Amino acid sequence: MGKTITGFSKLDKIEKINWLTEAYFKGDNRFVKILSQYWNNDQKLQTLHDEFIENTITNFYLPLGIAPNFEIDNKTYAIPMAIEESSVVAAASNAAKFWQSRGGFKTSVISTKKVGQVHLDFNGTSKALLDFFNAIKASLLKATSEITKNMESRGGGITAMELRDKTDVLDGYYQIHVNFETMDAMGANFINSCLEQIAKAFKFHFDANDEIEGDLEIIMSILSNYVPECIVKAEVSCHVEELSHKNINGSDFAKKFVRAIKIAQNEPYRAVTHNKGIMNGVDAVILATGNDFRAIEAGVHAYASRDGRYRSLSDAKIENGIFTFSIELPLALGTVGGLTKLHPLVKLCLNLLQNPSAKELMSIVAVAGLAQNFAAVKSLVTTGIQEGHMKMHLLNILNQHQASSTEKEIIQAQFKEGNVTHKAVVDAIEKLRQ
Amino acid sequence: MGKTITGFSKLDKIEKINWLTEAYFKGDNRFVKILSQYWNNDQKLQTLHDEFIENTITNFYLPLGIAPNFEIDNKTYAIPMAIEESSVVAAASNAAKFWQSRGGFKTSVISTKKVGQVHLDFNGTSKALLDFFNAIKASLLKATSEITKNMESRGGGITAMELRDKTDVLDGYYQIHVNFETMDAMGANFINSCLEQIAKAFKFHFDANDEIEGDLEIIMSILSNYVPECIVKAEVSCHVEELSHKNINGSDFAKKFVRAIKIAQNEPYRAVTHNKGIMNGVDAVILATGNDFRAIEAGVHAYASRDGRYRSLSDAKIENGIFTFSIELPLALGTVGGLTKLHPLVKLCLNLLQNPSAKELMSIVAVAGLAQNFAAVKSLVTTGIQEGHMKMHLLNILNQHQASSTEKEIIQAQFKEGNVTHKAVVDAIEKLRQ
Repeated sequence: MGKTITGFSKLDKIEKINWLTEAYFKGDNRFVKILSQYWNNDQKLQTLHDEFIENTITNFYLPLGIAPNFEIDNKTYAIPMAIEESSVVAAASNAAKFWQSRGGFKTSVISTKKVGQVHLDFNGTSKALLDFFNAIKASLLKATSEITKNMESRGGGITAMELRDKTDVLDGYYQIHVNFETMDAMGANFINSCLEQIAKAFKFHFDANDEIEGDLEIIMSILSNYVPECIVKAEVSCHVEELSHKNINGSDFAKKFVRAIKIAQNEPYRAVTHNKGIMNGVDAVILATGNDFRAIEAGVHAYASRDGRYRSLSDAKIENGIFTFSIELPLALGTVGGLTKLHPLVKLCLNLLQNPSAKELMSIVAVAGLAQNFAAVKSLVTTGIQEGHMKMHLLNILNQHQASSTEKEIIQAQFKEGNVTHKAVVDAIEKLRQ
Repeated sequence: MGKTITGFSKLDKIEKINWLTEAYFKGDNRFVKILSQYWNNDQKLQTLHDEFIENTITNFYLPLGIAPNFEIDNKTYAIPMAIEESSVVAAASNAAKFWQSRGGFKTSVISTKKVGQVHLDFNGTSKALLDFFNAIKASLLKATSEITKNMESRGGGITAMELRDKTDVLDGYYQIHVNFETMDAMGANFINSCLEQIAKAFKFHFDANDEIEGDLEIIMSILSNYVPECIVKAEVSCHVEELSHKNINGSDFAKKFVRAIKIAQNEPYRAVTHNKGIMNGVDAVILATGNDFRAIEAGVHAYASRDGRYRSLSDAKIENGIFTFSIELPLALGTVGGLTKLHPLVKLCLNLLQNPSAKELMSIVAVAGLAQNFAAVKSLVTTGIQEGHMKMHLLNILNQHQASSTEKEIIQAQFKEGNVTHKAVVDAIEKLRQ
């Protein structure tokens, strides 16, 4: 049987799976058995999940964990996190607890501007196009009124629009650069619908005009996930002496911590992993709240490189004995629209977060990132990252070898102090079982 | 009841959920009911998934979809994709089919070097530290031999190590910069274990040495997710006339497509969303194969900004009538270790991909990214992005309003040509139900 198929999307789920079984598993029905173990018993619920995307064959499980005790702007949260990586929820929980007794997290949303662009080519003079654009600008806005009506009633809409001459970058290249306020919606569909309407109206008016000389071609119309003016700031601070814990001196810890942050600000090899750690916290909340982590990731990392060098997203300092650790993140989030009402667990996670506005969710997400970063850098400059990580990983290796709870207990005790390597654990299991 | 808790992680799953119900849902047991709908009936399987991370309360469902008909280096794949966004699997499938009849995807792994660093402070002279490092370098490598033994037997290990003077960037800052080959493993634990061992040995030898003047402090030891020398290239090409389809002229399409790519290479606002689209394809495969999408995202976007300006990751050209579309991505992936054997669906997805090596998986992932990008840009420069996207979104809105299959059919027919806005669809449902 061949591995190529026509009309796959038109098959129903069982037919799709049957074809895959024949084409890729020589008819071995273990494939079907594993997939079906993950189906939900509730057929209606399963259909809902199947229809989120195309060609769905089963539900991919990500664990949904809870990091409690987050004190944010004097409100307490238990933050839901969907993530496959061990240690992330534990680290967030530890950081939350640590800062809860040191004043908690403070945040502020600095701005919420979103951006979209119509990209176009024009081979006449810049001045002619600019004059034309300004002459019909009101008509362009009017052309979107059916789309923007609802958003405007909620306080949002198109906030600015201008024609940008980008011919210094590419010959004949112009943009209609549009700013949006989308309130509690992430706004991708709204922005794209507006832009396509603006492009259509612009082309229509251009074609109807006899005076302007030159050819116009609309290349594409699309929102930008680069949102350097949709920014939230989160921070923690306390006296350096309050940082003392276990056998660690607060002042020494603060100095070493600040040094680690300075390194991440100046060395791209370190900055990338430093920011990756921040995104462990960010993405886990993004996923749990039904937002789009690819959009957030792209916007955040581009922001990290905005001055021409890729740098840390967080900052730390000691001033007059006060340690401050902070982050600024570009986050275009939604708490309405998209999956927010549709995925029952997303809805539940938003309920658990006490139904935040998009701005409140920006704060919560930034705090999750900052907490994650604090925990990671704290480990790195004290015990090293492997101690905590390997403790979690140990459990995974034990599960992989289907260790009983007695076996788990014995081997976990055995590796309490020792160096956890995959081989050492497997050896220990084998020895125990002999 | 307060919203703060001590010892949350020590509660069992039911106790955790009970506490959350009281603290955040006023005891309303609908919270428990929704969570428990997502538990697996197989208790053993559920425990396995619960223990991947900490404080797990349920399984977060991501749909697992299949994009068939990927012809990559003359082998045919059905690619598994775990993603919540509609249109992504459909777009990948369409691009796969389109290129299957035009020669398929060609790939090559350019290099597989991974990097880790020991970051340290030293206040003596650079020359003294460099001489000392070179004198004990062999001992440092020897100190890792227990950890590297297994990796070496598989053909990997530490491939280079040097002391880097970074005092031009930060006063007193040095790095032990280490290169690794980790074969089919992503290698994070291996690299971090090696680095911590190297740091320990370096500090030990330094303290035991009376001759060198100055103070040494190890700040941290950690792998880098920036992997600009762990690169795979993927491309498609055909004669421009072969690009003709429906009512689109191949040559015009190719020119407009290339123009869209040039814009993404030169305008960061566009580049970010362009690359976000690539990552829709990349991350969906990363998730399905148990790799870490935060690591990949950070490395990829930093790479996109490597020349000081954030740019498109893909490139397109027309030469002698041949259209070529290509991508180069830094991808540090594993097909052994981590979740690969542990998560039954990850194992199954790797089986479906015919048990690829890490290098083969790099190729598959890069192709998924390129295919996604082709589909997105193709839509953008022809029909616009909203037409396809809204068709998918329409189904989501219908499900949100629990439309029956008859209602779905009627309204889908109704919106076949019309402009899909959220409001318009809701109005249509309400009208139908009156």
